[in-house]
Amino acid sequence: MSQRGRRTQEWDVRASTLARNTHNLIRSIVENLTVEPNPSKPFIALSVGDPTTFGNLNPPEQVLQAVRESIELHTSRGYGPAKGHQEAREAVAEYSAHQGNVTAEDVILCSGCSHAIELVISVLADSGQNILVPKPGFMIYKTLAEGLGIVIKYYNLLPDKQWMVDLDDLENQIDEDTAAIIVINPSNPCGSVYNKDHLNDILDIASRNRVPIIADEIYEHFVFSGNEFTAISSLSKDVPVLTCSGLTKRFLVPGWRLGWIIIHDRHNILGKEVRNGLANLATRILGPSTLIQRALPAILKYTPQSFFDEVILFIENQAKMAYEELLRAPGLRPIMPQGAMYMMIEIKISHFPEFKNELQFVERMVSEQSVFCLPGRCFEYPNFMRIVLTVPEDILREACQRLVIFCKEHIDIGEKCKEIDNN
Amino acid sequence: MSQRGRRTQEWDVRASTLARNTHNLIRSIVENLTVEPNPSKPFIALSVGDPTTFGNLNPPEQVLQAVRESIELHTSRGYGPAKGHQEAREAVAEYSAHQGNVTAEDVILCSGCSHAIELVISVLADSGQNILVPKPGFMIYKTLAEGLGIVIKYYNLLPDKQWMVDLDDLENQIDEDTAAIIVINPSNPCGSVYNKDHLNDILDIASRNRVPIIADEIYEHFVFSGNEFTAISSLSKDVPVLTCSGLTKRFLVPGWRLGWIIIHDRHNILGKEVRNGLANLATRILGPSTLIQRALPAILKYTPQSFFDEVILFIENQAKMAYEELLRAPGLRPIMPQGAMYMMIEIKISHFPEFKNELQFVERMVSEQSVFCLPGRCFEYPNFMRIVLTVPEDILREACQRLVIFCKEHIDIGEKCKEIDNN
Ligand SMILES: Cc1ncc(COP(=O)(O)O)c(C=O)c1O
Ligand SMILES: Cc1ncc(COP(=O)(O)O)c(C=O)c1O
Repeated sequence: MSQRGRRTQEWDVRASTLARNTHNLIRSIVENLTVEPNPSKPFIALSVGDPTTFGNLNPPEQVLQAVRESIELHTSRGYGPAKGHQEAREAVAEYSAHQGNVTAEDVILCSGCSHAIELVISVLADSGQNILVPKPGFMIYKTLAEGLGIVIKYYNLLPDKQWMVDLDDLENQIDEDTAAIIVINPSNPCGSVYNKDHLNDILDIASRNRVPIIADEIYEHFVFSGNEFTAISSLSKDVPVLTCSGLTKRFLVPGWRLGWIIIHDRHNILGKEVRNGLANLATRILGPSTLIQRALPAILKYTPQSFFDEVILFIENQAKMAYEELLRAPGLRPIMPQGAMYMMIEIKISHFPEFKNELQFVERMVSEQSVFCLPGRCFEYPNFMRIVLTVPEDILREACQRLVIFCKEHIDIGEKCKEIDNN
Repeated sequence: MSQRGRRTQEWDVRASTLARNTHNLIRSIVENLTVEPNPSKPFIALSVGDPTTFGNLNPPEQVLQAVRESIELHTSRGYGPAKGHQEAREAVAEYSAHQGNVTAEDVILCSGCSHAIELVISVLADSGQNILVPKPGFMIYKTLAEGLGIVIKYYNLLPDKQWMVDLDDLENQIDEDTAAIIVINPSNPCGSVYNKDHLNDILDIASRNRVPIIADEIYEHFVFSGNEFTAISSLSKDVPVLTCSGLTKRFLVPGWRLGWIIIHDRHNILGKEVRNGLANLATRILGPSTLIQRALPAILKYTPQSFFDEVILFIENQAKMAYEELLRAPGLRPIMPQGAMYMMIEIKISHFPEFKNELQFVERMVSEQSVFCLPGRCFEYPNFMRIVLTVPEDILREACQRLVIFCKEHIDIGEKCKEIDNN
């Protein structure tokens, strides 16, 4: 074809399939909400998974100091290697020793955990293949996969068993084209934390079906008292595990975009091809800011345990408080989390005859009570909503109390009587 | 298919097509060089396009101060919008007023100019379509496109006409499947700077063939005295132009990964689809570090013109010096650049009977003279090599002098006699 053919055309510039098929479900649901908050009550957003939004949680002084010092370094301005600076990767390897035997060679620094996830998905799965994602689960997997033609298949989590994986369902979803199983632990949105036995059960399924695991452990160590965090890679005998994590949540700096991939592959199943593939993909955008890379060794080394303990204790207390408050809301069933920074709440929608679904419920809660929770459909999980636990205590309490009032006002009359009987 | 089928398999985990087809040409050529420098001469790398490597060029104090202040801001740690913070996008719009009418709505912040390029390529081109790339030209286009199945087609630049575009060749390359023309101005590796007439000629071709332009202007304003930089978007009447730029080169902070896209679309040809497509793609990894985003308004506003003037004067003097020195090298033809920070040098390879090609030439230069220049094949342009002009003056002079010695030692006897005759 020559230019002649083109000359006769009108301008017609289309967006690519990748661009058209890249959707951010949360964003599009939230942007399509048209309701206005009740002007007589201050608006409270319990929707944003950013622990820094309200200003009550801040990174520790040691983290800031590490970056202050990095700025003055001549070496914090130049390009780094695509996989990240050696010292920074060594520091991550050391920090991640709980995951198993990790060396700097196994670490790839990324521009946030999202970028880490983008790389691991796109190195393992081709267009037409599928990846198994928990439901409910964090939707970035869908956002990142579908544009590339990678199919999302869901496996169920069990709300009545503290969101453990429905193992039969997981195994049933696996087929010839399954490129990876995603395990998010601790979980967004559920706040569940899996014990060793359960993680071993998941590994068994992966092992006998020969499917590698992508472990999203951005909430690693974010567990409440009485629970223990175990990295799934530390238990794996043969299954290759690509673990994604970063500074984002634990160090309270989501905007800094510092994440990483750790390759666990005891039996060299991934071989050179996948390792090289990850290294190739890392050259596309050349990793995270070297300003933060240079600070990373000090950040990981000097942040005191007391900082982490305080943050997690605060979140745990928030979870308990919100749980207690919400038990008083007729028609709701809060599910106590074991970690992370969210709580899922079931809405017994049949008890609220005014609302067809949870979306209408959360919308009306905005217009009447000025409280916004994320509707379950943001996680492909209708009849639930998610709240964020990191907001300041008084605000969270106030929000929960408004939720209780809202439920009392809208609960079906019959249910209301039952409630009264019970009290 | 059920899990049963899989159970019988051996482990077999392959890298995806995207990963296998993502190659960094420069990296693979450089990594495959096995020669050792001459131990009696200090090694000089004229290969790395990082102006900060040698420590002689540093960002201005105002840039560092802006980031120092950003660290203390509570708002520099949380997530930003996927396209970037409003104030930062406004600052970029103002800074880019020379490109035409730009508002914050037209700006998308990215993780370096590479990421900007990744987004604009992947929003415009689908697998099977092609993009037109200058030859010689910066190879990131190939790295980013081929994995996605986007075909690279080259159009020639003319070394004897200061690397102007071979307009006939450009127009001849356009076909039904051409999704975009890439224009790199000022150019890496050529250092050429196009005047308005030439840019208008390119726009005419794009206009009558209805092909949008991707303008890589990461070296904008990097022009030597007597030359003028014109943003191609400022001249476009109808052709949509997606301009990619960033802090990388001009502010001497390549490692900070702060780039941007500016959408120029006077006649709304890109429409909502491409704008939304870019916004969707931006949600994949959530943009550059907010630490730098928060500093961006001050960086763009307070960096004094004198800083830019000094840097460019230094590079221009380096270009002149290297050019003068290399004119004395028999068998080489340096081509004086008009901007950017590189010089291309033709190697009249037939005058060096020991070497089959420019790769052997540059390898031997490493083993004998400990000077490394990038072979032209890194830009799909054999028989040339590229040097970087930002290294300290004494080092660049020394390197050029070694090059002259090397050429004198290896030039064909017949050519040597001609040289002597000429002097
Ligand atoms: C489970 C999970 N994985 C990954 C991410 C993305 O992390 P980052 O902000 O580092 O890209 C998030 C962020 O909320 C998350 O909840
Ligand atoms: C022409 C050109 N475009 C883009 C880039 C990439 O810039 P960044 O480092 O901001 O990704 C470079 C870097 O050398 C370049 O030379």
